[in-house]
Parts: sequence; C-alpha cells; structure tokens
Amino acid sequence: MKNFADRLLFKIEEMNNPTVMGLDPLIEYVPDFICKKYLNSANSVQEATGLAITEFNCRLIDAVKGIIPAVKPQFAYYELLGIEGIRALKATIDYAKKAGMIVIADAKRNDIGPTACAYAKSIIGSTELIDKSLVSIFDADAVTINCYLGIDGVAPFIKECENSGKGIFILVRTSNPSAIEFQDLILENGKPLYHAVAQKVVEWGRTTIGESGYSSIGAVVGATWPQQACELREQMKRSIILVPGYGAQGGSAKAAAANFNSDGKGAIVNASRSLMCAYKNTGYVPEQFENATYDEAVRMKNELCNAIADK
Amino acid sequence: MKNFADRLLFKIEEMNNPTVMGLDPLIEYVPDFICKKYLNSANSVQEATGLAITEFNCRLIDAVKGIIPAVKPQFAYYELLGIEGIRALKATIDYAKKAGMIVIADAKRNDIGPTACAYAKSIIGSTELIDKSLVSIFDADAVTINCYLGIDGVAPFIKECENSGKGIFILVRTSNPSAIEFQDLILENGKPLYHAVAQKVVEWGRTTIGESGYSSIGAVVGATWPQQACELREQMKRSIILVPGYGAQGGSAKAAAANFNSDGKGAIVNASRSLMCAYKNTGYVPEQFENATYDEAVRMKNELCNAIADK
Repeated sequence: MKNFADRLLFKIEEMNNPTVMGLDPLIEYVPDFICKKYLNSANSVQEATGLAITEFNCRLIDAVKGIIPAVKPQFAYYELLGIEGIRALKATIDYAKKAGMIVIADAKRNDIGPTACAYAKSIIGSTELIDKSLVSIFDADAVTINCYLGIDGVAPFIKECENSGKGIFILVRTSNPSAIEFQDLILENGKPLYHAVAQKVVEWGRTTIGESGYSSIGAVVGATWPQQACELREQMKRSIILVPGYGAQGGSAKAAAANFNSDGKGAIVNASRSLMCAYKNTGYVPEQFENATYDEAVRMKNELCNAIADK
Repeated sequence: MKNFADRLLFKIEEMNNPTVMGLDPLIEYVPDFICKKYLNSANSVQEATGLAITEFNCRLIDAVKGIIPAVKPQFAYYELLGIEGIRALKATIDYAKKAGMIVIADAKRNDIGPTACAYAKSIIGSTELIDKSLVSIFDADAVTINCYLGIDGVAPFIKECENSGKGIFILVRTSNPSAIEFQDLILENGKPLYHAVAQKVVEWGRTTIGESGYSSIGAVVGATWPQQACELREQMKRSIILVPGYGAQGGSAKAAAANFNSDGKGAIVNASRSLMCAYKNTGYVPEQFENATYDEAVRMKNELCNAIADK
C-alpha cells in the first residue's frame, strides 16, 4: 500500500484509534530517574540530554505502539539540542517506524524552489551525496508545512507524496489564540483567509487520492475552533485533518470530533503533553510513566471514539 | 552596541555595502577539487560531504569578509545532510562570527508557545540542559520567521531580540512567482494580505528600535517586486528589509534599491548563487573560486551602491 492517506487510515482503522502521540520532549517532561542515569555515564551533558530524551521517547513508543497508530515528533525540541538533538530525533523516528508506527514530522517547513526541495528531501525524501549516492536522512512518512509562499513552496513536497507515497499536512487553521490574527482576515469575497488556503489544499490534493478516497495532502486544523472545523471539514472532504490542541491546549473531544467526516474517518487527533506527562497525574510515580501513558491513551481513545460516534 | 539593528547597520556602513552573502551549499555548487579531497580522507561519504561544504563556506567567508558585512546560511541545505550537515552549519556560523560577520539564519521557523520558544532558543538564544546548565546551539545574530500563526509564534523571538540584542526578519512579500497566491489576496479593506502583515511588523517592532532609528524586527521583501517594495518601504519605515531575489532569481539592482529609504539605509540585499558560483563564469577556473567570488562581490557592491544613489 503506497499511498500515504491509505496507509494512515488503514493503521487508524486497525487500532480503531484516530490518535497521534506528539513527541515534544521538553526537558521537564523527562522523568528525573532517566536524566540521572545518563548524567553519570555520557561524555557530555548535551549527549546525556539527547540520550535521556531518546530513552524516554522509545519507552513511550513501546508503551503505546499496540494502541496508537502514529507519532508526531516536534522538530523544535530536538533542534534545541543541536547535533545531539538531531541524533535523538533520528533515533526516535527509526524506533517508531520499526515499531510499525506512522511518523508525522512536525517541522512546519516553508521555502521556495531548490530550498523547499532540500527540506522535502531531508524530511520525506532522500539526499544525494558528493559521490552521487543517495541516503535517507529522516525518512518520515509525512511532514507539516506552512504555505504562505504559495505553490512554489509546496510543489517539491507534493512530488515526494506522488512518487514515494509520503504525505503532508498544510497549516490551515492553527489551534492557538492568535490564529485569528491573519488566518481569519476577511477577504474581498467575504470569506476568511483560511478558507482560501483550504481551497488550495483541495486543489493540490487531487493527484494523490488513494483507494480510501482520501488525499495524501492533508491539513492542520486546531481542536480549539470547532465552528471553523465544521466549515473546513465540509470544504476539504477528501483531506485528512491533523488536529492539534486537544487536551492540554483546551480542545475537548467533542470539539476535535468536528474534524471527522460522518463516516467517522478523515482526521487524526494529536496529544503531546497529556500523554507524555500522564505520570504526573495523581496515582502514579515517575517510574510508572509507561503505565500512566498507556492508561491515558486508552482513556483518550475511548473519549474520542465516543465523541465521534455521538456526532 | 547591543541592538541588532544598530549592529547590522553599523557594519553595513563600515563596509559601505548593503550585501549579505547567502550560504546555500547545494552539492553542485562545491568545486570538485574540494569534494575529491574529502572523499578520499573522511570516514563516510556523508561526513565527506559535510566537510567539503564547510571548507567551501569558510573559504568563501575569508574571500569576502573584508567587503561583505553579513552571511545568511539557508538551513535547508544543511538539514539535508542530517547530523553532518548540522555540524557544517554550526562550523560555518562560528567561522563567520569569528571573521566579524553578522549571521542571519535563514530558517523560516514558525510555531506557537513553547515550541516557538524552542526554535528561538535554538537559533538565537540558549538551551537549558538536564543539569540546568545553559548552552548556545547556533547563536546566530538573527533568524527569518513566518508569521502565519500570529503573535503567539513571534513573541518568543521578539523576547530574544529585546533581551539579547538579536534580530528577526518576518516574511512579508517573498520573491517567488507564487508569492501572489496568498500574500496578494485582497482583504475586505481593499488592501492585500502582505499589507496587514507589514502593519504587524511595524507594531511588533516598537520595543526594539535602536539608536539608528531602526528596529530589530525586520521584514523580508523580494527584489523581484519593486512596486510592492516601494509601498512596503513607505509602510515599514523603521524596519530593516532583507531582500532576496537579486541576481540569479531575476531581481535587478534598481529593483532591489526600491527597498532602501531615501537616506540610502534600511535594507540588505542577499545574493547566494551569483556569489557562491561566480567561479563558473567565463575567465575563472574552479581553483580560483575565491577570486571569482571577491570580484563578483565588488561588482555587486558597486552596482547596488549606484542604484541606491540614483534612486
């Protein structure tokens, strides 16, 4: 099965769980006992930090790989550590893929021409080295992108989707309060800017529609804006919607459910902090972080499935 | 001198040259004789590629450090090589700073809240490790950002500008043909979207205006759109404009000059390919790439200074 949309939806259906676990390893999320282990053994504090994050991520992946179909590493937290962070990112992606999970690189890249090409090759394609050999750098299944620069910046990513079965999620309506600042500006046709972006997502998605009926060119629509989500769901019927903002950011399961089609498909809801830091809830100790994350994953799955069924 | 705008303008004035050299090391830009050297000595082709890029960049920096005030490494080309690329990027930034040049990280980052914070800390701030020690990862002087997500994504960068004398350049009107696709959409007030973005650049820039009268919150406006550049120059009087698109992308010196204020200040023009690949012009051999780049830098400086004077 080569089409990204098909692969993702198959995996969601297999697990009956439209959840993606965000891997946003802020240092304060990593349990102390893991940090201490590496502080005593690594060559540098930077290396120790990278190794602690890698272990935390891999154990989280093992905890949920049976019930969550995908992970979404947020590139910023790895870049924050420089080379050791990139090493942790690569190790995390490789580990998740080996565990059978779909990997969505949350990198929000954007540029034009050869530069957009370089980003696409780095994250979802392959790089040509000076001896003309090819190597895959991150080899994620999909990547988030920002399309303020228009099709010039999106086309190189679409090419990878068409040729290599990869996917992209284009920022349409983000989950944060100031999303309204530009995204909701009303155009002369009376519609908001995000509507024009969504229209392009539909157009650009036509060449990668899989057997599932969905396109590998998806969209990002925050769980914090259920009204906009309803409009956008209607407008982008064949796009898979990646839904951030559930849980810690305040989006409810009911609000997230607005992003699903009436067949209960077509979206995947992200949770980062609520899954990664579940061990900070009452009833757990840090050493049990995997159990805590698993329990929260089950709770979230049930809550989401119920909300989608009740739509 | 702590304010970024002041530092950049001082350096431009010192050299009487508002040019920034883009360091976009596509593999095919690196002269063969440098590649061959490392292919025979490095531990892996990936390492060889990274080392070849680093040597090329450092020699380019040495060639122009006496006449060009700043460099702009484009992150995509380094990320394309994974860890070895990040190593080359860090080495390039460090080398340029030691040579006294201003470093503008062209990363076009964008995200919200703690994630935007992580990007800001990684590129222009510092990272807290698991033992609470602080380390600077890239430590560039400034970074390009995309503000489609609104102030939530910009505020963490502005904080670094206010507290650590760093700068940002916000994408307003990019140089590529499809810039018009969203950036030129007309809003209900009859003005294009890029106008609304420029208005925010002005507002957000008020807290970082230096002795020069310019703000550390700058803007990106392509050299390929002189008419828009005139409007935007008028609208963002106190913003330094980073001007891509000159040379290889088709923007003329006259068009680039539209981004300068009547005092001949307030903008910096990027050239990447035309400087990096000057040795491919008639009259040079690859071994003379530094001379070729120097000669092109002189030519560009004169052409730009004349165009600005003729305005």
